[in-house]
This record gives sequence, C-alpha cells and structure tokens, in this order.
Amino acid sequence: MSEQPREAKLETTPPRGMRDVLPDEVELRDRTLTTILDLYRRRGFQRIETPAVESLRLLTRGEGGENEKLIFKILKRGDRLAAAKDSDELADLGLRFDLTVPLARYYANNHARLPQPLKAIQIGPVWRAERPQHGRFRQFTQCDIDILGIRSEVAEIELILATADALSALGLEGLTVRVNDRQILASIARHCGFEDARFDAVFIALDKLDKIESAGVASELRRDGHSEGAIGALMALLDESTETGASPAHLARRLGETTDAGAWRGLTRIIEAVSAAAGDRFRIAFDPTLVRGMSYYTGPIFEIRHRDGSSSIAGGGRYDRMIGKLLGRDVPATGFSIGFERVIAILMERGQPEAGGPAKTALVFDEDTGHLGSILAMARDLWDHGHIVRLELKGRRFGKQIEDLQSRGFGRVVVFDADGQPREADLGRGSAREGTE
Amino acid sequence: MSEQPREAKLETTPPRGMRDVLPDEVELRDRTLTTILDLYRRRGFQRIETPAVESLRLLTRGEGGENEKLIFKILKRGDRLAAAKDSDELADLGLRFDLTVPLARYYANNHARLPQPLKAIQIGPVWRAERPQHGRFRQFTQCDIDILGIRSEVAEIELILATADALSALGLEGLTVRVNDRQILASIARHCGFEDARFDAVFIALDKLDKIESAGVASELRRDGHSEGAIGALMALLDESTETGASPAHLARRLGETTDAGAWRGLTRIIEAVSAAAGDRFRIAFDPTLVRGMSYYTGPIFEIRHRDGSSSIAGGGRYDRMIGKLLGRDVPATGFSIGFERVIAILMERGQPEAGGPAKTALVFDEDTGHLGSILAMARDLWDHGHIVRLELKGRRFGKQIEDLQSRGFGRVVVFDADGQPREADLGRGSAREGTE
Repeated sequence: MSEQPREAKLETTPPRGMRDVLPDEVELRDRTLTTILDLYRRRGFQRIETPAVESLRLLTRGEGGENEKLIFKILKRGDRLAAAKDSDELADLGLRFDLTVPLARYYANNHARLPQPLKAIQIGPVWRAERPQHGRFRQFTQCDIDILGIRSEVAEIELILATADALSALGLEGLTVRVNDRQILASIARHCGFEDARFDAVFIALDKLDKIESAGVASELRRDGHSEGAIGALMALLDESTETGASPAHLARRLGETTDAGAWRGLTRIIEAVSAAAGDRFRIAFDPTLVRGMSYYTGPIFEIRHRDGSSSIAGGGRYDRMIGKLLGRDVPATGFSIGFERVIAILMERGQPEAGGPAKTALVFDEDTGHLGSILAMARDLWDHGHIVRLELKGRRFGKQIEDLQSRGFGRVVVFDADGQPREADLGRGSAREGTE
Repeated sequence: MSEQPREAKLETTPPRGMRDVLPDEVELRDRTLTTILDLYRRRGFQRIETPAVESLRLLTRGEGGENEKLIFKILKRGDRLAAAKDSDELADLGLRFDLTVPLARYYANNHARLPQPLKAIQIGPVWRAERPQHGRFRQFTQCDIDILGIRSEVAEIELILATADALSALGLEGLTVRVNDRQILASIARHCGFEDARFDAVFIALDKLDKIESAGVASELRRDGHSEGAIGALMALLDESTETGASPAHLARRLGETTDAGAWRGLTRIIEAVSAAAGDRFRIAFDPTLVRGMSYYTGPIFEIRHRDGSSSIAGGGRYDRMIGKLLGRDVPATGFSIGFERVIAILMERGQPEAGGPAKTALVFDEDTGHLGSILAMARDLWDHGHIVRLELKGRRFGKQIEDLQSRGFGRVVVFDADGQPREADLGRGSAREGTE
C-alpha cells in the first residue's frame, strides 16, 4: 500500500486514516458525550485531563501490548535532533494510544491533590497508526471511567452500572454485560493442565472463540503444541458452559477451586448486584471464555455488547498493579471504557431521532440593509428566549435559499424588505410570499 | 536550558511544557466551553472537527508565520523512515498549530457537503513547541468561530457580537473590542511615506506600541533604516489619534484616502452596528495602530481586551485569500478566536462562583454490606431526580472522611449501618452521629 502521492498539487484530504467530521455528526457526537458526561457526573465522577503527548518511556513500558507498536512518535527538535545518533534516538515523545496509561501517570503525579478514592472521567482522542480500514481510524475518541483506590468489587459494580446506564440513556437496547475474572481464567487453565508459563498463549487463543468457534480454538492450541489432555479438558468445559448456562458457582464446583475463593465470591456479588439494579434495561452474564486483550488486568474483566453484535461497545477490568509501578506503592484500580466511535456508528445507522430541540429561525435580509440595528434587536430577543437564530444574507437564488434553510430544519424564515419590515416566508411553497424580488 | 534528565527512574510529570488538569479546573473549563458553545449554536453556528494531525505540506505553506517554526513533527514509520535520506525527510505529518489552516483545508475538502455560507465553530487543542513560560503551554485550547462565504462586513458584525456576547455571558466585564483594517494600515504607511515593500516591517514595529510606546516604535523604525520623514509623519498621526480619540471618519479625512473607500465604509458600519447592539455590555473602538500578527489577514481585524488587560483575550480578522489557494477559487472568510486559556486564567483568578448546581449527596456504607441493593436503589432515585450522588465506602478514619466530603461540597451525607438503615450524618460537627464505629 502506498502512502500519499507526492504531487505538486496540495491534497486537501486529511492525512491517511484520519477524518473530517461534518456538522451533523459533530452535533450527534456532542449530544452523545453530553448525555454520558452528565450521567457520570451525577454519580460523583469528575473529569480529568492529561496532555495528548506523553514520553515514549512511559508509553513503551509494556502496558500497551500491541498498541505500543502503533505509536505516532514526535520528532525531536533542533540540537537534540542533530545529536541523535541512530533512529531510536530521533524521538522521545509520542501521541497517547489509550487513556489508561496516562491516567496511571496522572495519578502518580497528582495523587496528593486528588480526592481519595478518585473517580475519574476521561474523554478525548487517542492515536494509533493502524492499517486504515472501514470504520477504523487512526484518531478516535475514548470515553473512560476509572475508580482508583478501591479494592472491593463495589467499584466494579459501580462502573458497570454507570456504563450500562449511560449506554441505555443513549437509547441502546438489548445490552448484555459479560463478566469474567483473570484469576478464574488462570484457574481454568490450571485445572485443564496447561503449563503455567503458557497461560497467556492459551488466553490469546480462547479470546478468538467468537470468531473461530471452539474447534478453531482447539486447532490453534494444537498447532501451538499444547497437550492433548489439556485441550480436551478445555473443550469439555466449553461444551458444558454452553449446555448448562454458565454460573460462577457451578463452574467453581466443577473446577473444585478453593484458592481463588475471593475471586469467585467477588464475581458472584458483581453479577447479583448488577442484575438486581439493572431491571429490564440490560442483562449481565458470566462468560468464562471472556479474555479482554490487555495484559495488565489482574481481576474482574467485563465488556458490553449491543444486541447480537459480535464485538463489544465497552470494555474494562481491574488493573491493581499498574499504578504501583509508577508510584512505588500499589493502588487498586478498575476502569471501564466506552468504544465511542462504535457507539456513534450504531447511533448514525439507527438514524438520528428528531432533536426536538429549540426552534430554529432564519432572518434573511439584504447585505446593504439600512435596518441592521432592528434586525439584530429581533435576533437578540429570540436568542434570549433560547431560539436558534441564523442571520442570512439574501442570495441571488432566493427560492433555492429558502428551500435549503427549510431542509436544514429552519421552521421559520423571516424576510426583511428594503424598508426593514419583517415578513414570514411561506415555507409550504418553498419560496417566500414576496417572491424573489 | 536542558531537557528532561535521562534518569533510570521514570518521570511522572507530563512532558516539558504540557500539563495535567485537576478535576476542579476541568469542571470550570467544561462549564465555560458549554456556555460559549450554547451561545454560538443559538446563533446558527455549527461545530465541525478536523484531526489533530495534518500534513506538513499544508502546515508549512507560510500561512502560519512564526508558528510554523514551532510545529511538533511526527516521525515517519517503518520502511518510509528507513528510506528517509536526510533530516528533512524524517517527517511528513505534524500537530496543528492553530485551527484556521485546518479549517481552510476542511472547507476545500468538504465544501460540496457543507451549508453555504458556512458558519463554523471549532473547539480543540493546538500544539506549539514554544519555550515554556509562566501561563504558556505547548498544548492549549482554542475556540474559534468563522464565517466562510460572506464578503459583506455583516460577517464581522456577527462574529464580533457573538464573541463579545459569549465573553459577557461568562461574567467578564469591562470588555473593549478594538478594530482596524489591514487596508487602512497600508494607507497609513503609504501616507507617511514608508516604502511599499517594507510595510510588513513597519506593522511589526507598530504592533509593539503597547509594550514599547511610540518612542520605542520610532527608535525601532529608525534602527531598521526607515526614512526620518516617514517616521515623523507616523508619530504625528499616533499623537493625534490619542489626543482626539480615533474615529475612522476623522482619520480618513486626515489621510485624504479615496482608494480604500470601501474599507473605511465597512469599518464605520461595523463600529456603528456593534456599538448599537452592545448596550452597556462592552464597547467598541477604532484603533488605527492595531496590527494582529498573522500575515494572512486581508481586511478588518479585531481583538477584545478585558478591563485594562494589556493583552487580548480574543482576536481575529478577515482572510479572503487563504481558501482560494487550496480550492482554486476565492472564498471570502473571516474568523474570531477566543484565547481560551487566558479566559480560564481570568476566571480562575476571579475565583469560581458557587456553581449553585445540583444537590450533592454521599452515601456511605461498609464494603461488605449485605444491603447493597437498597443502597443502589436509593442512589438511583436521587440520580433520577438530577442529584449528584457519590457512593463511598466507609474508611478507617471516618470523621476525616466526612470532613473531606463536606469540604468537597457534599451538603448531605447518608451513612448506612450494618442493618442497612440510613442515617443522616451531622455535618455541623464534622463527624457522623453514630460515631466512627
């Protein structure tokens, strides 16, 4: 694939994989963010902000997994660039690829001035130099909530309820929360007899269950040389989960695990509390095959799917050991991130409901009118009453202009004549009563 | 000045010149942006979005003036980096340094799908690798409105009223709008007898009038070798403007200009219309010494100052020739940009007025409570009534915890006992009725 052609003429398209957002979509995005933000704030979460740029030393410590390969690096400047001896020294800053790694740095840097525990909202763009494909962009918005400083699963319950309620508030129906626990995943792998050192590879295969089904997972594990006994045991467990409907208590008995009693108890409490509070707005289910990609998770993990969507629209989990690496003491942490671009894609597809917002009026007048003062006074009066009022100069194609305004939702068009007298345009006819002069 | 030290320990401070924003400031920033955005939207402006990253070919075409030297450039990746032959080829993308150059590209790229004329709002971060200094950061927020497609000074009138009204709506008083016109500046320079080819240097010196006064401007012009006659004529004009209070009509007569009749007439109309609409919320004044830095301005230019502030909190002007260079046909354009960080600094200094927002309640309970369901039900009821409700686990230092909540604005603290019974904490005493259990 070739990058942008090097022509003499300047391209006016955005850089590869980036995009311009048109006014209607921006309005939907802003309305969606406001709904989410208002709901999170009512629950006592507070928004924080970090810079878009972080040091590469922070961004490349292994927390970011595959994303670390996708960092947009920022070239050093001046003398520092001249002093760079090889290509590894050309950059020491990069654009953030998520909001979690910067949050850990933010907390380590500012914890003394932050409320304890911290319930943080983060909304902002992140950048990944992924191969562009349909619906996937190199700059996209994430919308996270995190609770730092709570070890109890009450934090997970709060995050799951807030996120699912926010998605419900956007009108999304048929939401399913799926939960699992990294410790339980480890128990499963141990029970089946996989080698301890190779659990991560087992999880990576298991993570593909939705796409390649259990037969695909089995052949991938076989190809990787795991033992037939372990693979068989895992397949038996998978079949059983599907047959009986998974419950943590059932699987716990089946595995005969006692070491992770806390994890089983926590997961059960999360499911019971969320289920009771969810009413019929969404459902929650234990999914022992849920993996979630990032390696930093240490406990409960969760995601939300929309109807029978094969991919999640929100995902998160507990990461109790990330902040400690920066701060020098462990701080329990758990977070839930809305895949904002996927949510917007669903809302765009569904079609925007009529905003039912404020009345929209256009005031149309001649460029050289001598009555600008009274026109502005009328506009101000309407503005002060909460109306949207657009000042509009009379164009050469007046009928077309009125039609355009109407199609853009202006329910009222007032046309000022040469004497400054306002007349309502007849929108039914798509042109004004007084004609095109 | 040395850059970040290369220690083994990982710095948790943000990159040089960047900053973390604490929750209280984010709340003020969000509230301020909402006020501005709501006001602009009521006036029929629509928000658009462009990516943070643009091609260096777009960013370095001369429109950005000094800012072009301050671009954060993004390192090429993989094979393309390996193929780079010298340091100029290491990067072909950069972070935007303003919102105007990207707007011109956006319009050229999307004009067929945009309302005509376009009344655009842009809010977002921009980046400049300036030498960090007090109150100046390498990432900061700009908040612009632009009207593309209107040649009439009605566009300037609309932009000035919207921007000044937005700043007034934030509670800023003593605002003065200062206006001038690039064509009038040229008339002044021509009238005084400066060489045509050196007008830009004259304007750069004149731009410093506030800082170095007229004597300083004169000596700078002298040092640059301009003629004594021209310098003397300019000084005479400056004295006169100060003595008589500048009016466009007065200065026009004084200069005896007839070529720029349109510019004089436009400026007079702007001042009269804005003045009539402003009431006592702000004032507008002609300032024949106003320059504004950017070289792309072609007509009226304007800025807003707060009280006797020596620097502007908003600035803009007409730039009728920028879009044509990208689109191939000229599109008249004018814009006004709020210096959002300066506005926030003023609002922070002033102290935040009590938000007077929704009631804030904390629900405090034991981590292992058996009554989570009823606690969550109570929270939901309050959330549904628009209250802010924070779930809070009972800490070891309970009295301190209640004090903290109170100092953070929680006017009501409800503590659940082991039986799930809620009791109001006695905030007057700074600790709960039922003690610290």
